[in-house]
Amino acid sequence: MNTTTSCAQTPAPATPPDPTATSVGALGWMKGFPPPPDRLITFDDPAGGVFPRTRWSFSHVRETVPTANVWRGSSAASPLPAAPRSDIEAVTFKPLGGAETLTFAQMIPRTYTDGILVLHRGRVVYERYFGALTPERPHIAMSVTKSFVGTLAAILADEGRLDPSAPVTRYLPELKDTAYGDATVRQVMDMTIGVHYSENYADPKAEIWDYARAGGMLAQGPKYAGPKSFYEFLATLKKKEGAHDAAFAYKTVNAEVLAWILRRASNRSLADLLSEKIWRRIGAEQDAYFMVDRIGTESGGGGLNTVLRDLARFGETMRNGGRAPNGLQAIPKAVVEDIARGGDPARFAKAGYALLPGWSYRNMWWVTHNPHGAYMARGIHGQSIYVDPKAEMVIVRYAAHPVAANADNDPLTLPAFQAVAEALMRP
Amino acid sequence: MNTTTSCAQTPAPATPPDPTATSVGALGWMKGFPPPPDRLITFDDPAGGVFPRTRWSFSHVRETVPTANVWRGSSAASPLPAAPRSDIEAVTFKPLGGAETLTFAQMIPRTYTDGILVLHRGRVVYERYFGALTPERPHIAMSVTKSFVGTLAAILADEGRLDPSAPVTRYLPELKDTAYGDATVRQVMDMTIGVHYSENYADPKAEIWDYARAGGMLAQGPKYAGPKSFYEFLATLKKKEGAHDAAFAYKTVNAEVLAWILRRASNRSLADLLSEKIWRRIGAEQDAYFMVDRIGTESGGGGLNTVLRDLARFGETMRNGGRAPNGLQAIPKAVVEDIARGGDPARFAKAGYALLPGWSYRNMWWVTHNPHGAYMARGIHGQSIYVDPKAEMVIVRYAAHPVAANADNDPLTLPAFQAVAEALMRP
Repeated sequence: MNTTTSCAQTPAPATPPDPTATSVGALGWMKGFPPPPDRLITFDDPAGGVFPRTRWSFSHVRETVPTANVWRGSSAASPLPAAPRSDIEAVTFKPLGGAETLTFAQMIPRTYTDGILVLHRGRVVYERYFGALTPERPHIAMSVTKSFVGTLAAILADEGRLDPSAPVTRYLPELKDTAYGDATVRQVMDMTIGVHYSENYADPKAEIWDYARAGGMLAQGPKYAGPKSFYEFLATLKKKEGAHDAAFAYKTVNAEVLAWILRRASNRSLADLLSEKIWRRIGAEQDAYFMVDRIGTESGGGGLNTVLRDLARFGETMRNGGRAPNGLQAIPKAVVEDIARGGDPARFAKAGYALLPGWSYRNMWWVTHNPHGAYMARGIHGQSIYVDPKAEMVIVRYAAHPVAANADNDPLTLPAFQAVAEALMRP
Repeated sequence: MNTTTSCAQTPAPATPPDPTATSVGALGWMKGFPPPPDRLITFDDPAGGVFPRTRWSFSHVRETVPTANVWRGSSAASPLPAAPRSDIEAVTFKPLGGAETLTFAQMIPRTYTDGILVLHRGRVVYERYFGALTPERPHIAMSVTKSFVGTLAAILADEGRLDPSAPVTRYLPELKDTAYGDATVRQVMDMTIGVHYSENYADPKAEIWDYARAGGMLAQGPKYAGPKSFYEFLATLKKKEGAHDAAFAYKTVNAEVLAWILRRASNRSLADLLSEKIWRRIGAEQDAYFMVDRIGTESGGGGLNTVLRDLARFGETMRNGGRAPNGLQAIPKAVVEDIARGGDPARFAKAGYALLPGWSYRNMWWVTHNPHGAYMARGIHGQSIYVDPKAEMVIVRYAAHPVAANADNDPLTLPAFQAVAEALMRP
């Protein structure tokens, strides 16, 4: 289906598709044995990764591509007690740059939400699933994956097993003659790398498509002669673009380079490392999984799939200074504090995100620097972990927005999340 | 890697490969990031499905092909208490047709065992893993899959949702003009179908290879123009060979036809049906998974992957008249009794299995009719569930024998299992 990771090669539609008319229920994808030809979604079908099929395929990634398991371990899942609040849906907010007032309930379909869960002080005050997503079914996390990779790097650094100040080539001598040849691990962790690589989904010639094909996230096709694995692709990034350390520049390949560094530093696959350092420790209730390339290498840039509740457990663990809902100090406190403190807003500002003024990027997390000290993991098409320490709130969301740009989600989701935070803080 | 599902297109070697020299540890498959080219196993590599790579790849199927999850549910795993016995390995037996005396411990490497577990009265008296297999890693069950499919059919029949006496075409009108056009569901369940289809792994023109390619278990290749799914392949089986109901004839396609019937009768995918009717009920400790074809259809003929312990739970549930280790009547007693009673030995005899005198086949289980009333699920390359009611014993085994024929396992494993049964029965 060209899981594709995201990779909908579609321009933004003039008017947004009707969420109800384009829902999984309305269109009936993959029903029947076999499904009718016009309701079939396969990896080889280039439309499989394009909305509205994504509303099904983002919850069925493993049925179309090879994957690696992230084991949850043998222990009981950590508690996530339900304490539903009926007032969440009625919370109102004004979209960024808009004049109308919307409710939280209206935001949900307008941003093509597949599932959303709100935690307040560790209790589930709101939880809903739509279309193909169910509580026990993993959904693709897209670039939320990167925040797991960045957290793992910070954990290994905290353990003294990874040196952020070291050159990348200490771990990956293979990248000596690439743009990463004179970069440090820290610059990779914070994405201040000057590498020529375009992430522009609207440009069919952008390197993001070469990356996706090399990683098996897009069909390579019979005549394909390009790089056949993530490793081979990363070695092709010869060209620099700007200096390292000067500015934040969001490029998925940095997460793949960091994932490679993690494997070398830990002598573990990324799936095993995530299982050992996070998944088993936070008390995940389901296994997670990574999409892998043709030689079994996990996509650290966007290939993780989890159930929504486990994303919530991870977010709650972060909010609690690394202490998981099972009481275990699952992630070192220093790692969480370093992420919450954020990176350098001046370097971030150079990237020109008009909707994210004053933000920064640290260990592959997006840090708002707002009065609540909120920070986020963000995936294209609307996946998110939103941690609001002051409001003692975590919101996690899986979505399949038709437009591959957070700029289409943020105007609704960011003020909606802030409004819920304020509502929860009221006595 | 051509998971292949068994499908090692290799003739039997003159002398068996040395189990130690060909072990995963000795050969070091897939070590390193990336692994060295001569230690790489991929789906596109035709050697991936051939011994000795199979000793790695049979435990890593999902990393090479698309799969569908069989959910274990949210409950705690059912108990499988350990009560190790040190005398198991020293149990001796004489191989069928051989003069030497071997120990159980010697049988294990000589049959290229990846993992083996012996239950006595519900307690684990012996459990060992070798090479790539670990307690938490699923291994491909190959044709042991069929016994799950047959059991599911018997369960649906018991519930009145499937009529074994009905024609196949009541559920699958698509097969009207095939060899199945005048067959009954019961004939499919017991494999007394007269269909032209060769299961001879030594013949590169055997239909088993067309089946594997259609199901995505062998690479289709860029110029492939044959059937692209299990459904399409099954519709090509036009030619009859012999009459229905006359003789047992082991053909994997019958399990695929039965899996298709189950989907139609239950309106569930095979993965969901197995989860609902067996996996969640027996208290499985890990999710299982199926290999799927290019449109997401599970292989009911050989595509199931499970951890060894869950195979043991299923075997123990059968031994206990359908009562699982968690105390639940997971499978109807009548279903278990029907299987244990077996099918018609006269029809079985016509298939000419010299090593299996007096056996029969019922609901896709192999029934010994020996004095212990033992019955088996059997997979090519040596996978097995061996239920011995009289000895209150279950043996489950995953293996990667270099020869794709049970006739190479049975002379060692069958007398070894019987010898352990007798040892356990001694006061």
